[in-house]
Amino acid sequence: MDVRIVICGMGRVGQAFVGLLIQKDKDLKERYGLNLKIVVAVDIGGAAVSPAGLPLEELMAHLKKGGRVEEMPGFGKKGFSGKEALSLVPADLLVETTPTNIKDGEPALTHMRTALSQGRHVVTAAKGPMVLRYNEMKTLAEKSKVKLMISAATAAALPTLDVGLTCLAGTEVLTAEGILNGTTNYILTRMYEDGCPYAEALAEAQKMGVAEPDPSLDVEGRDTANKILLIANEVLGARLSLNDIPVEGITKVTPEDIQKAKKDRKVIKLIGKAEKKDGKVEASVAPMALPKDHPLASVRGTEKAISYLTDTMDRVTVSGGKSNPLGAAAALLKDIIRIYQG
Amino acid sequence: MDVRIVICGMGRVGQAFVGLLIQKDKDLKERYGLNLKIVVAVDIGGAAVSPAGLPLEELMAHLKKGGRVEEMPGFGKKGFSGKEALSLVPADLLVETTPTNIKDGEPALTHMRTALSQGRHVVTAAKGPMVLRYNEMKTLAEKSKVKLMISAATAAALPTLDVGLTCLAGTEVLTAEGILNGTTNYILTRMYEDGCPYAEALAEAQKMGVAEPDPSLDVEGRDTANKILLIANEVLGARLSLNDIPVEGITKVTPEDIQKAKKDRKVIKLIGKAEKKDGKVEASVAPMALPKDHPLASVRGTEKAISYLTDTMDRVTVSGGKSNPLGAAAALLKDIIRIYQG
Repeated sequence: MDVRIVICGMGRVGQAFVGLLIQKDKDLKERYGLNLKIVVAVDIGGAAVSPAGLPLEELMAHLKKGGRVEEMPGFGKKGFSGKEALSLVPADLLVETTPTNIKDGEPALTHMRTALSQGRHVVTAAKGPMVLRYNEMKTLAEKSKVKLMISAATAAALPTLDVGLTCLAGTEVLTAEGILNGTTNYILTRMYEDGCPYAEALAEAQKMGVAEPDPSLDVEGRDTANKILLIANEVLGARLSLNDIPVEGITKVTPEDIQKAKKDRKVIKLIGKAEKKDGKVEASVAPMALPKDHPLASVRGTEKAISYLTDTMDRVTVSGGKSNPLGAAAALLKDIIRIYQG
Repeated sequence: MDVRIVICGMGRVGQAFVGLLIQKDKDLKERYGLNLKIVVAVDIGGAAVSPAGLPLEELMAHLKKGGRVEEMPGFGKKGFSGKEALSLVPADLLVETTPTNIKDGEPALTHMRTALSQGRHVVTAAKGPMVLRYNEMKTLAEKSKVKLMISAATAAALPTLDVGLTCLAGTEVLTAEGILNGTTNYILTRMYEDGCPYAEALAEAQKMGVAEPDPSLDVEGRDTANKILLIANEVLGARLSLNDIPVEGITKVTPEDIQKAKKDRKVIKLIGKAEKKDGKVEASVAPMALPKDHPLASVRGTEKAISYLTDTMDRVTVSGGKSNPLGAAAALLKDIIRIYQG
């Protein structure tokens, strides 16, 4: 089956995705019967367009040389926007990899709205539209009878939603607890295992590229809040918005807190939690002291994990999954395969 | 959608499955649009039959009183076999829960062969037919274009296959390593944490009901071999049979081995492993000394886990899932939902 893709965003995740399509081309045809073509690749200044499918090796070579999509010889169109692409070029699916924007969700919001309204599946790594406009996005997808897949926006290669919705289908998920941010888990691990104070662990994480130059989204717990919001809504059937989630980050965790936890044979982790209480779902983000035999207690360094407690399967915990652009691209590809898997 | 089920085997798993259908009836209709009916319930001496669907509360009440299916008032048919049921009564799906038989696979083999040949989906907790006749079963399902779902035969509520095939779709799985047997992991945990010798830990496990009176299937590693065989074939695309898998159990693990592992900061676990080597898949079962930061090292007691190493998502590990009849029944139900999930 041919699948015609419009991809918006040609940054690190977008490029990793194109690289994956090249690498996996034969495998995707053989194992899944899928011939994935990119008909439009959009970035800030325009797009490369080919209704028959862009030559992906050429596209990558062009980008690797520092070229921009709108300048790609034979295919580039200056100023051609994602919205235009989705309105004018026949396509089956949008892959959204523009940077996450939690203020107004743009430009991903416009792209996703356009694609969904026109009956195209959407696979997104951008969290903004889902965090800000969850109900609108879901309703649009349902109306158009298309799939809206958000694995890559919800901890990427760690399969939080797949496990919650597929592996646990038919169970009632009572609680979801996750270590959903690698940066904060790295900092807490250094503080715990090496007695490093917070500021020093953060500086080291920044030096290693594990933490951003502006780490506030991570260390203040907001990235974790975005993810637990989506997990609560998708897996526990909630309809929460960010305002419903009290959020405390790790900036106030002191060496004394760590010492006290150690004395109690506990480990401090930044936990995003969603749980059913009297038929309602409550979610929160805060540092928590977990007993050493808690399944999340042994999740160290930049690793992430989610633990679900269910009514009929007891507790199921999944950990790992690459956090880099390749991991996000692999999650996008996995979501596409799942759309077409029988 | 109505789904007409023939269930073979009314032991603990079969009864837990019927109980789940009663408990989840409303939820299955609302969340998944599925109206699951049991049209035939087969056990050794005969069956209870109702093409319109058996009254499940009545069936359970009858069984709880020690009644047999073939004696169920109004519905019982003495001597009516699974094969007859599958040949004579219109149905969409077989749920197979007869005891696992690794000698000749019967009676599950006959049931599954009949159902698949006649174009009915099969969901099985019985390992025998899959372990002994993997290729035949798969070919039959493909020919009839029906689904053959074997989660409940492959570590039940621990989602080994779902994670490998769904959450990791599009990746190449390079290695699968699992702690796939709760009994042996319990014994090894006691030996490691409490310095218990093997025989004592085994006796205790038997007293607790964690180990069978005849524990050989577990402690000799054969149960683990059955499971890693199915995982290797399903997830790594192998076509192995049991003879291809060298198997060593835990019966020869000594307190000295444990001491040595401790000194090296390692933990001894019974590992079922499958890996790709030069394009071929090799599988084995043996006790292994894992470094303490290996994701399976912290899996304690009766818990099970599987860890996949992939090309594009790195390592993903999943642990937990109830091991009792309810967990197996929940895995059967999950597989049914997945057959009909869009």
